[in-house]
Amino acid sequence: MNVISVGMVSGAMGNLAHTPIELEELTCKYLGLGVANASNQVIQRDRYARVITALSLLASSIEKFAVEIRHLQRTEVYEAEEYFSPGQKGSSAMPHKRNPVLTENITGLARVIRSYAVPAMENVALWHERDISHSSVERFMLPDAFITTDFMLNRFNGVISKLLVYPENMMKNLNLTGGLVFSQRVLLELPLKGVSREDGYKIVQRNAMKVWEDLQQGKPALNSIGESLFLQNLLNDEDLRAKLSESEIRDCFDYGYYTKNIDKIFERVFGC
Amino acid sequence: MNVISVGMVSGAMGNLAHTPIELEELTCKYLGLGVANASNQVIQRDRYARVITALSLLASSIEKFAVEIRHLQRTEVYEAEEYFSPGQKGSSAMPHKRNPVLTENITGLARVIRSYAVPAMENVALWHERDISHSSVERFMLPDAFITTDFMLNRFNGVISKLLVYPENMMKNLNLTGGLVFSQRVLLELPLKGVSREDGYKIVQRNAMKVWEDLQQGKPALNSIGESLFLQNLLNDEDLRAKLSESEIRDCFDYGYYTKNIDKIFERVFGC
Amino acid sequence: MNVISVGMVSGAMGNLAHTPIELEELTCKYLGLGVANASNQVIQRDRYARVITALSLLASSIEKFAVEIRHLQRTEVYEAEEYFSPGQKGSSAMPHKRNPVLTENITGLARVIRSYAVPAMENVALWHERDISHSSVERFMLPDAFITTDFMLNRFNGVISKLLVYPENMMKNLNLTGGLVFSQRVLLELPLKGVSREDGYKIVQRNAMKVWEDLQQGKPALNSIGESLFLQNLLNDEDLRAKLSESEIRDCFDYGYYTKNIDKIFERVFGC
Amino acid sequence: MNVISVGMVSGAMGNLAHTPIELEELTCKYLGLGVANASNQVIQRDRYARVITALSLLASSIEKFAVEIRHLQRTEVYEAEEYFSPGQKGSSAMPHKRNPVLTENITGLARVIRSYAVPAMENVALWHERDISHSSVERFMLPDAFITTDFMLNRFNGVISKLLVYPENMMKNLNLTGGLVFSQRVLLELPLKGVSREDGYKIVQRNAMKVWEDLQQGKPALNSIGESLFLQNLLNDEDLRAKLSESEIRDCFDYGYYTKNIDKIFERVFGC
Repeated sequence: MNVISVGMVSGAMGNLAHTPIELEELTCKYLGLGVANASNQVIQRDRYARVITALSLLASSIEKFAVEIRHLQRTEVYEAEEYFSPGQKGSSAMPHKRNPVLTENITGLARVIRSYAVPAMENVALWHERDISHSSVERFMLPDAFITTDFMLNRFNGVISKLLVYPENMMKNLNLTGGLVFSQRVLLELPLKGVSREDGYKIVQRNAMKVWEDLQQGKPALNSIGESLFLQNLLNDEDLRAKLSESEIRDCFDYGYYTKNIDKIFERVFGC
Repeated sequence: MNVISVGMVSGAMGNLAHTPIELEELTCKYLGLGVANASNQVIQRDRYARVITALSLLASSIEKFAVEIRHLQRTEVYEAEEYFSPGQKGSSAMPHKRNPVLTENITGLARVIRSYAVPAMENVALWHERDISHSSVERFMLPDAFITTDFMLNRFNGVISKLLVYPENMMKNLNLTGGLVFSQRVLLELPLKGVSREDGYKIVQRNAMKVWEDLQQGKPALNSIGESLFLQNLLNDEDLRAKLSESEIRDCFDYGYYTKNIDKIFERVFGC
Repeated sequence: MNVISVGMVSGAMGNLAHTPIELEELTCKYLGLGVANASNQVIQRDRYARVITALSLLASSIEKFAVEIRHLQRTEVYEAEEYFSPGQKGSSAMPHKRNPVLTENITGLARVIRSYAVPAMENVALWHERDISHSSVERFMLPDAFITTDFMLNRFNGVISKLLVYPENMMKNLNLTGGLVFSQRVLLELPLKGVSREDGYKIVQRNAMKVWEDLQQGKPALNSIGESLFLQNLLNDEDLRAKLSESEIRDCFDYGYYTKNIDKIFERVFGC
Repeated sequence: MNVISVGMVSGAMGNLAHTPIELEELTCKYLGLGVANASNQVIQRDRYARVITALSLLASSIEKFAVEIRHLQRTEVYEAEEYFSPGQKGSSAMPHKRNPVLTENITGLARVIRSYAVPAMENVALWHERDISHSSVERFMLPDAFITTDFMLNRFNGVISKLLVYPENMMKNLNLTGGLVFSQRVLLELPLKGVSREDGYKIVQRNAMKVWEDLQQGKPALNSIGESLFLQNLLNDEDLRAKLSESEIRDCFDYGYYTKNIDKIFERVFGC
């Protein structure tokens, strides 16, 4: 990062009184650093604050992934799981437990790293650009922020490389709603048949809300031939059937429709 | 809160030069306030900071409840739900959606209220106890903190009073693990029969981990007569059976065991 | 602090399933602790957050004193000074330097301790009241917050007990403004003579602003017989003299007027 | 800022199910925006957090300048001053007051803007990249952060363009220490004459500390012919005189020595 890779040899007041400006430039060049164009007794602390906020932002993004995995690992969802080695104990009290301990740990570490952002910025307004109050802050913050971020990244790397993923459970959870996940697709077909957005919304919502009720009363999400509750409801809705044929309705219940652009997105993100 | 309900009539330097100390005391008494024993041009800002941190702590606790409800409302868990009025739209794009919008909103508001804690504390170190830098902070913070906390509490009150709770889903989720939730109970029975903690842990964990595998392979959590996978495994474990009889094992699978002290806890909390 | 001095023996789910409620109460009593009326796998983290915010508030107040001393020690003010031992070096580059290094250090430490308040409050909203994300935060925060606060208090105690105070410089600084510090007193005398507040303000301000100009042009703040510029101006103001006699004006320039209630304030604060 | 100037037309799940990827790219291009390569229901909040931390860093740097001016304006220093218009009232109670109200205000605003950094980063870890908890935070934060930063920059611009600067007071303050500001220069001359750093430090410090004592006892910092106390002490120090001639010592007391590189530094910073 250019902002922090700078040096200074400008003297105790930053006025280059005792050494020539060329010495400062040569020294920094020799060390592979840029020159702090204007310094004082110290390099100004906005540079440090930018580095610390960059670490805080990084930690907050890693936290997003960690929170995702914690959700996916909960018993009722169970779409993914941190690796659990054969002899490992999940809980001393509960022999069956397999908690997402690493991502919970990472979540906490993100709070720690993020907490350095404000004191790093409070350090900027040194009196006359050179009181020494930043020093005690940085003795805590600089090693802890870098070491903790490094640890978090390593731990997260380990989580990802060993992550257990359960695609069958993903499909099972998708089916949990009795086909409701396809509601937007149906909604978008109706305007193509001349139905207003508002009328279309009513038709679709009415059939969707009935699914929630049926599920609450214990009806199975899919019937014996794999037709979802929502599909069954829609096929029986006369207003809808006046606009969409059976096959047009059935065509809406296609997962492939939602994944057809995934490769393009991956290509855009990873450029390959 | 005693800490903030104080006044001062001590003059621009706090030295009571122009008015007698009795006037300050009478005035505050008349207003129903305590007296700030030592003041300066302003009442010192540690008092304000304490009030703001109290609001921040309150908001963080409300967030805990809000996060709980958000978890309980997710499709795969669905043990509770914010009230959703008949004509309400959950999502303009997805007619079936019923999101926990109120508790998500409360979660965000907690971040807002919590963020006032640090600037409130930065306000304490006024120069010579009376520069005016706290003023611009407080013009934002004081109304926003109080109004937002009030709004959050009202909104949360509404959520709780209309909350939909689904006990059947709670039981369904408890059963999801094929009886593993009873593992600690079994573990605690074994030492009473002379089995070491370590050996007991191995026996119970081995049977518990097999349940995870069976569940992964699609075995039903409960068999046709309602016996959980874990119970079946334990009944078939010869080492265990050498120590516990069938009825002793079956007795461990009792939800009532876990709720027997609930009334006492409620009494302790609510004192009635 | 009652809020944190509590214990729990309520089991891994906080439901007192495996041990009687009386055991929890006896154990806590034996340890000199209160009982956490409702707990879960862990004591809820709002209690910890309150302790940490209390330390943050304490640190912010100590910072106020530290900032005060830093101001008083600056060369141009020099009303007080941290003790500087005979052989001490203030700066390796500048042999004459005597910086307020201890209070600058304390100022930084206040930033550190204050920064724990937000992560401590983020820890409150544990998932289902018992995820383990608070743990990594607390392993940093709890020892560092307590040890750093203890260190800061000790250091501050040392600063205060050895503080050098220079009353002559205080008087010199008070006189720097050529008597302007008495302007409010004069302002308050005029209404007693029937002059409106607004007219009085104009008279006093006009004489006061002239003092700033005179000081800028190098006029001495006090003349050879110790009369301040402001006093001289006021004595020469005919509008003022029409209302206040010379002795009435001179009486306003009395430092004792401002300190007459100091003992009462001390008594109110320290109760003795 | 490239990080925030992006758009998305990727649908409610970010999977481009209902619209082609080309539409998203064309739309963003038409709007002069980049494309968020991967989005979900919302653009991910790390982008917003980076913008807010950039504003926080900016505010913290403006605070540094504001704190500088507040120091320079204090009565005992008085090297610069916010413009005070003829009819302005500095204080309703004290007609002579001219406080640095604008820079005190800016100092407080910096606390406000800085306080948005943490909630902006807390917003990053949305559940499944799309819960709506960020929304309530952003409704406060986004307008307030931008408007307040804009206001602060305008106010600061006004402060700087009208700032009153008093070079004579700067020189007076430099002379306050009786020439001690030249101590480093003397210290650096001695090794050139074969004196060890350590011995040189002792010689210079001994003469420097004597100046502090003399000043404390009321000796004038400069004698009638403008020679500083420190210069007088050094000229009378036999150990020093054995190494440096009178003219060599006198040559050290030259302010021009400290400013000779100022133009080069300005050129480096402003490139002209």
